[in-house]
Amino acid sequence: MQSQYPESCPFCKIAVTYPVDPTTPIPRNPDPDLLSPSAFPILSTPLVMAFLDIMPISPGHVLLTTREHYEKLTNIPTPLNTRPEPGSKGLWTKSYAPEGTTPSQALGYWMPILSRALAKTLDIEDWNVVQNNGARAAQVVPHVHFHFIPRYPEGRKELGGKGAVDVGMLKSWRMFGRGTREDLDEDDAKQLSEKLREGLREEITLLDRPKEKL
Amino acid sequence: MQSQYPESCPFCKIAVTYPVDPTTPIPRNPDPDLLSPSAFPILSTPLVMAFLDIMPISPGHVLLTTREHYEKLTNIPTPLNTRPEPGSKGLWTKSYAPEGTTPSQALGYWMPILSRALAKTLDIEDWNVVQNNGARAAQVVPHVHFHFIPRYPEGRKELGGKGAVDVGMLKSWRMFGRGTREDLDEDDAKQLSEKLREGLREEITLLDRPKEKL
Repeated sequence: MQSQYPESCPFCKIAVTYPVDPTTPIPRNPDPDLLSPSAFPILSTPLVMAFLDIMPISPGHVLLTTREHYEKLTNIPTPLNTRPEPGSKGLWTKSYAPEGTTPSQALGYWMPILSRALAKTLDIEDWNVVQNNGARAAQVVPHVHFHFIPRYPEGRKELGGKGAVDVGMLKSWRMFGRGTREDLDEDDAKQLSEKLREGLREEITLLDRPKEKL
Repeated sequence: MQSQYPESCPFCKIAVTYPVDPTTPIPRNPDPDLLSPSAFPILSTPLVMAFLDIMPISPGHVLLTTREHYEKLTNIPTPLNTRPEPGSKGLWTKSYAPEGTTPSQALGYWMPILSRALAKTLDIEDWNVVQNNGARAAQVVPHVHFHFIPRYPEGRKELGGKGAVDVGMLKSWRMFGRGTREDLDEDDAKQLSEKLREGLREEITLLDRPKEKL
């Protein structure tokens, strides 16, 4: 193990609570209430995880993190020899091998796939990816993570229910401040995370098709 | 080729003007004046490039991009079979193999290394990584790129010269707006880019050391 799971780290709690399923990178019906606050995982691989932000800046705000605990980008090891050792973790099946063999390769690998799933599922064309290192850069949870933040057409309200936000308000770059985020509505989050998992499954199925059919 | 080099794309111009050196991912004394506006490359691999932003939000603001032209994250291909074909591009030498075999793996791979070089060279502990997709998300150049934006202690002025900015002003998240960015000073940029290349060379040398010496 290159790192520990600090007991106090909320993202490490998610990593431990929703372990890797060797048959698929997309969790099957994960129970959100195994943790408090509830967790809504949508991706879980040997190297990375993704789940809903519990204080979304806009509906569909998800986080992509490393499975292991690294505080900042600088703390992620980047070994020169990136070939997996035979049988390492027993999980280098076909489903996972494309993500690469190191945490930073895997973070990069999933970014386009997660983006495609978000864009299709939420019907958006615009989104930001933001990763904060250190307090002056607005990092709150000290476990490296990338925010995927949908940007909706001005005035378009999305995804109904109590969790809805007038995302036209979010056009400006006054992000991560007080007053611009609200707690995730649990019912909305259940529906949304299932839709995003379906979206990710579709993306992965497309990858699995023979090349000539793409 | 998975993509074209649009004539009008400034990042594609940089890719063509500063081709891969098969012996090193760090350009050797690249001439900034081969292009107008000048370009200050610090990393150039078969899959990715990094260079100074010509309108920095803070001193040391660099961009990490794919070598090939993809507009948004969603446009980056993520093939299931990521093993390099034998001899592909003739560049899969030891120096490059660790970055992975696809553009998105390589983007992820270089993020910690580029971050370590920035943190050491600029003596900072805080920085943001920001990637914008689409006009509503403040994307300007339609070639996928990650901003690496140093956040300096409040009031600390950095790197002297006309290009200096009171980076304490930049604490807020009002980024990418008018009035908060200024043109890069050419002399500052020459010095800064050489320092960053040195920083990256050091990071890569550390990787090259036998494991037991790390």
